[in-house]
Amino acid sequence: MILDNGVIRTMDPSLATCGALALAGPLVAGGVGTHEWALPSPERVDLRGRCVLPAFTDAHVHFPTWALAQRDVRLDGAASLAEALDRVARHPRHGTWIRGTGWRDAEWAEKPDREALDAVSGDTPAALWAKDYHSLWLNSAALARAGGDLDADGGVVERDAAGAPTGILREESAWRFRERYVTVSEDEWVEATRAGIRVAVSRGVGAIHDKDGWLGAAAIFGRIHEREGLAIRVWQSLPAERVTELAALGLRSRIGDDFLRLGYLKTFMDGTLGSQTALMLDGSGVRISGRDELEETIRAGAAAGWPVSVHAIGDLANREALDAFEATMDVWRPLGLRHRIEHAQCLDPTDIERFARIGVACSVQFTHAPSDRDLAERLWHDRLEGAYAFRSLWEAGALLANGSDAPVEELDPLAGIRHGVLRTLDDRPGWRPQEALTVEQAIRASTVNPAWLAGDERRRGRLLPGFLADLVVLSRDPFGCPPEELATVEVVATMVGGRWVHNPPPWD
Amino acid sequence: MILDNGVIRTMDPSLATCGALALAGPLVAGGVGTHEWALPSPERVDLRGRCVLPAFTDAHVHFPTWALAQRDVRLDGAASLAEALDRVARHPRHGTWIRGTGWRDAEWAEKPDREALDAVSGDTPAALWAKDYHSLWLNSAALARAGGDLDADGGVVERDAAGAPTGILREESAWRFRERYVTVSEDEWVEATRAGIRVAVSRGVGAIHDKDGWLGAAAIFGRIHEREGLAIRVWQSLPAERVTELAALGLRSRIGDDFLRLGYLKTFMDGTLGSQTALMLDGSGVRISGRDELEETIRAGAAAGWPVSVHAIGDLANREALDAFEATMDVWRPLGLRHRIEHAQCLDPTDIERFARIGVACSVQFTHAPSDRDLAERLWHDRLEGAYAFRSLWEAGALLANGSDAPVEELDPLAGIRHGVLRTLDDRPGWRPQEALTVEQAIRASTVNPAWLAGDERRRGRLLPGFLADLVVLSRDPFGCPPEELATVEVVATMVGGRWVHNPPPWD
Repeated sequence: MILDNGVIRTMDPSLATCGALALAGPLVAGGVGTHEWALPSPERVDLRGRCVLPAFTDAHVHFPTWALAQRDVRLDGAASLAEALDRVARHPRHGTWIRGTGWRDAEWAEKPDREALDAVSGDTPAALWAKDYHSLWLNSAALARAGGDLDADGGVVERDAAGAPTGILREESAWRFRERYVTVSEDEWVEATRAGIRVAVSRGVGAIHDKDGWLGAAAIFGRIHEREGLAIRVWQSLPAERVTELAALGLRSRIGDDFLRLGYLKTFMDGTLGSQTALMLDGSGVRISGRDELEETIRAGAAAGWPVSVHAIGDLANREALDAFEATMDVWRPLGLRHRIEHAQCLDPTDIERFARIGVACSVQFTHAPSDRDLAERLWHDRLEGAYAFRSLWEAGALLANGSDAPVEELDPLAGIRHGVLRTLDDRPGWRPQEALTVEQAIRASTVNPAWLAGDERRRGRLLPGFLADLVVLSRDPFGCPPEELATVEVVATMVGGRWVHNPPPWD
Repeated sequence: MILDNGVIRTMDPSLATCGALALAGPLVAGGVGTHEWALPSPERVDLRGRCVLPAFTDAHVHFPTWALAQRDVRLDGAASLAEALDRVARHPRHGTWIRGTGWRDAEWAEKPDREALDAVSGDTPAALWAKDYHSLWLNSAALARAGGDLDADGGVVERDAAGAPTGILREESAWRFRERYVTVSEDEWVEATRAGIRVAVSRGVGAIHDKDGWLGAAAIFGRIHEREGLAIRVWQSLPAERVTELAALGLRSRIGDDFLRLGYLKTFMDGTLGSQTALMLDGSGVRISGRDELEETIRAGAAAGWPVSVHAIGDLANREALDAFEATMDVWRPLGLRHRIEHAQCLDPTDIERFARIGVACSVQFTHAPSDRDLAERLWHDRLEGAYAFRSLWEAGALLANGSDAPVEELDPLAGIRHGVLRTLDDRPGWRPQEALTVEQAIRASTVNPAWLAGDERRRGRLLPGFLADLVVLSRDPFGCPPEELATVEVVATMVGGRWVHNPPPWD
């Protein structure tokens, strides 16, 4: 097959742009500047000047959780408790639980609690996640399921003056409640994920780095892979606390195939900005793991053949994570393990250069910058210099990969790229524009760099001969359009492994 | 590439034999009866009348254990205690432990014990496996490592009149001792396995069903796969008692790629003939799992997406295993799980037809029949009708796969095929020749059927267009030679995935 008459951006400096691309089965055969071909009568697709990029990787997504949340009550942007409750009341019921996501009560006059929720949900158990997934709002029917079993190390159970739970759980208490009591059948997960993949490919996604290992995402993807084949490639996380079992089973990172591969161990240093649980140098926040604990995880992971991905948001959390990676360099560097810090949202400016020096990648979410700007201006006003410092990190040589953090933000790589370049979601000018990336940097962080993180730098992320034919056709070349017009760039079609997985040609 | 001028046996009825085979990269492109080809100047290999078969699968092999044992004291055929001790004394030392395998004391006048072994091993700990790997002979230095920690459920610790361990452990006690005290570094495993793979491909092996999941074989194969690529395909077992962890991690059977794939759960019903621990209808033997326990394993495996392989040697063990698979058919049949009984050595004749009816495969070892004949004649003289009843099983419709059980027997598929057809290892006529297989049946059990068990019946095991180009070149066509001349058939070369992994052409 030949994609012809377009602008093919290979993302490789050896042939940055060409007018046509030849494909052979699941692979790229070659790209040339003209359309003279020696092959006998290939299928020819006329791009009519459209742009082709390597398919996007979403480097940080809780994919099944996001896919399931597509069916849930959406509370994003609810300006008050009353508005949130109204949305719950009006949402169609399906399944055993009322599930919802996206509330943020920082600006609400009345705070959420179980009684308010009881009034609109009745006897049906309801579990509503905060936008950052670090707080959970339950009604009385939901609380009853736990029979008082709410406390957890590293967790918070909010209680009223009488000592009764208000219905708000945070951190470990919230996650433990979900794991034990908010049950979803595996069939429901599979069905939602299958539908989610259709949405993802319509947005140009060809690969994801999934974060839902803790809920058994590998089995969800595995069932789809067995049944009809996956349309996207999955680099799967598993919980770091399982490393002993993985070692005993003899399971190392990279077992899998080009569509479903076990990738990395995931652990946490701290909480989040939104829940005010990020671990800060000023002494605030929640420490989920300390430096020593992370060191142990890195060593155990290395012994068993696994790289580590660690969530770190606050400046102290990031410093301790960097310390742990630095202290263990002798162990993991010879093994070529590709570790990563997730979010790296608030950094002490002196820590920025350490990512490149130590060799730990920075798995960030461009959309978080404009999305968090108001909250960050308020809570981190005295430390914005190292917050969402994507351009500084890039220029210091850090490897940046971009993810959506869906369902925290929408799963939409083009939106992520736009937010990395423009740093605004609305009519305001870009926030701290000195940290804006170029279009090329933002796209590289969404294609080339995540492929490297998954050890696939010679297979994916660029459109070179012998690479997998994973590509997205865009309505317009994002390199060639003024940044303020990036929102007009749309996904026309997506191909993964030589197969059109979204909107096959011909196109109008 | 075209393999030309030979006898290609595709093992598929649609084109049983052809004179040439065309390959394209890792795949078979087609087979034809002439050598007229339309392709432009392919590489041409002249077979000079040699025979090509699908590469063999060894459907039952403890591969790393066998590979490591290649470096150990070999006690096979030692006719007396003195001969065994002499071999230990003369063996070159390397590593921390003296390790040995292959003794069988059934015919020895003096029985093995620690004192006899101390005399030739001194302070170096020594651990010598019986031929069936169900008994372990230790010296005093080895026993000292355990500090008295020898007992285990389902295990036997032999003791003298004074109550002191004699140095012989059986069943669970033996395996537990190995796991806890006979340490081998992962590097040593990898090195031995790498060397073992070179030996295996020289014997025409292109794939194995490995049984060493319990020792983390997946990591050993994984390290070789990461470093230089595996030359053989591995269908990996994992211990059935890990099924809860696998479910929590979301790991299902079939995760992996064409070279290393997690396959099936392995568990045990009973012991062995050689150790007299096979569970028999006459009430003798050791029950490791009962019917109910196996039922639970099958149900848990099915829920997590795993087929089960169960070791069963005695007639009662086999009956209970069949009962358990039959009782759970409603659960696993709709999932298409391919369960298997390993060995199926002694069957009550009424149970023979059940394998096909229930749909459980029979993973047997053709070589065990002539190898065990004397012992079986003695211990099972009243129940030989259903012992090693390969032809009866075949004719009753059971799916038979052949394995070596290496290191119990030598890893050599051509020897296995010969023993399935001739049922003798020496000058005696075949043992119970009514149970002999045809050459075609024996080869099918070593190629087509194991590929089906691994879910690869449309990818491997036959030489059809689009199948993986895994093949063995033989010096002579085993179908066309008198059975008594099968020993003259030799492996000339082996190809896996289109790559010569043993003795590339040209050949003399």
